[in-house]
Amino acid sequence: MRNPAVPEIRALCFDVFGTVVDWHGSVQAEVQRLGLPVDGSAFALAWRAGYAPAMQEVRSGALPWTDLDGLHRRILDRLLAERGIALDEAAAADLNRVWHRLQPWPDSVAGLALLKRRFTITTLSNGHVALLVNMAKNAGLPWDTVLSAELFGHYKPDPQVYLGAARLLGLAPQQVMMVACHPSDLRAAAACGLRTAYVARPLERGPGGGQEGYTPGEFDIEVPDFLALADRLAPPEKSAP
Amino acid sequence: MRNPAVPEIRALCFDVFGTVVDWHGSVQAEVQRLGLPVDGSAFALAWRAGYAPAMQEVRSGALPWTDLDGLHRRILDRLLAERGIALDEAAAADLNRVWHRLQPWPDSVAGLALLKRRFTITTLSNGHVALLVNMAKNAGLPWDTVLSAELFGHYKPDPQVYLGAARLLGLAPQQVMMVACHPSDLRAAAACGLRTAYVARPLERGPGGGQEGYTPGEFDIEVPDFLALADRLAPPEKSAP
Repeated sequence: MRNPAVPEIRALCFDVFGTVVDWHGSVQAEVQRLGLPVDGSAFALAWRAGYAPAMQEVRSGALPWTDLDGLHRRILDRLLAERGIALDEAAAADLNRVWHRLQPWPDSVAGLALLKRRFTITTLSNGHVALLVNMAKNAGLPWDTVLSAELFGHYKPDPQVYLGAARLLGLAPQQVMMVACHPSDLRAAAACGLRTAYVARPLERGPGGGQEGYTPGEFDIEVPDFLALADRLAPPEKSAP
Repeated sequence: MRNPAVPEIRALCFDVFGTVVDWHGSVQAEVQRLGLPVDGSAFALAWRAGYAPAMQEVRSGALPWTDLDGLHRRILDRLLAERGIALDEAAAADLNRVWHRLQPWPDSVAGLALLKRRFTITTLSNGHVALLVNMAKNAGLPWDTVLSAELFGHYKPDPQVYLGAARLLGLAPQQVMMVACHPSDLRAAAACGLRTAYVARPLERGPGGGQEGYTPGEFDIEVPDFLALADRLAPPEKSAP
């Protein structure tokens, strides 16, 4: 059967950076627009590469809870210093907020609108609430609500985030599906009992940037984009009237 | 000037029960639909009257943190017992969830849509996240996000709720306007530095049910409904293109 019935799913939780929005292309374009004397793609990759170690500093207790603006700014200041680039405070603060202005993939808004007809759709991101709300207003992302690591005081892939999202939604973990382009995120969600949907985003790190590997069949659903996800989960003949 | 410029406001936080949705009329209709041997209006008023004392039990520590479904169910079970009405568990649980299915006032959805063009619009309710998300899906309320007392472990009018909302939105309190039909809610918000908009909802407790009094001019804005609020805050000539 092409569209297996999955009646127990009530809510879809979306990873955001890479899965919904194109951080690499958006940061690259901003850096180029500003005329910074760097390779825009390499700068975007370096900025993003600082993110996992910064979260680990929070997780280990070396840093107190710090929101993503704070982590991004620490990394940005280091990258600029290493490259001998001086920006005044207003320019650096504005550049740091490029993460509030990331552009969606071409299928994101239309796919979310289709999925919203049948499911509660929410973020489940390491971005903080303010960033995610600003991004949604700017990009037209039609979330039912915004859930964030910030609400749980833990960053993904800590289980508190996935279990906390199900709890706040008033659902059992198996009624919630995590949607992400990162197998590691989906594996952590599955370990908490959530259903999983893998969405390929081959350009997440730019052309040739590579992707985290996975075993086909590892996740409940594996699709190329959100329109295909809607076709699997919310086909027209099954939509509410 | 009829439409004073209020450029510093970035987000509107809405009280929900009474301000956005008609709890009295919705509960009354449900009780009548079920054919319970009670006066629907009186039953709705009694159910709601149990709510402030129940929150006070949480505030005093007599009850641990309990979400609104839990508080509503405690009150419902007492009201049914007092009236000698026996409902099986499924029927009682479904009746308790009428608070997830409350109907909006006639101006609510259209007014929120207009205000959303210019501001971040969010709930700031003592209802828990799951209830507010279910209500929004059912009633078509176009929130940018759902904020709840549940996220702060405090019920309004505790200051942690108002200050917590501003913090999660990444805004200063004076960039946030509380919108409510309850002067006591607005006074508590103002004490935390938020702006205030009073919306009259003369039928909140049904015809002749009365309203909490206030002094005209006490709040930054005082309007009859959400369309008038949009006219004051987001008039067409000031809307973003």
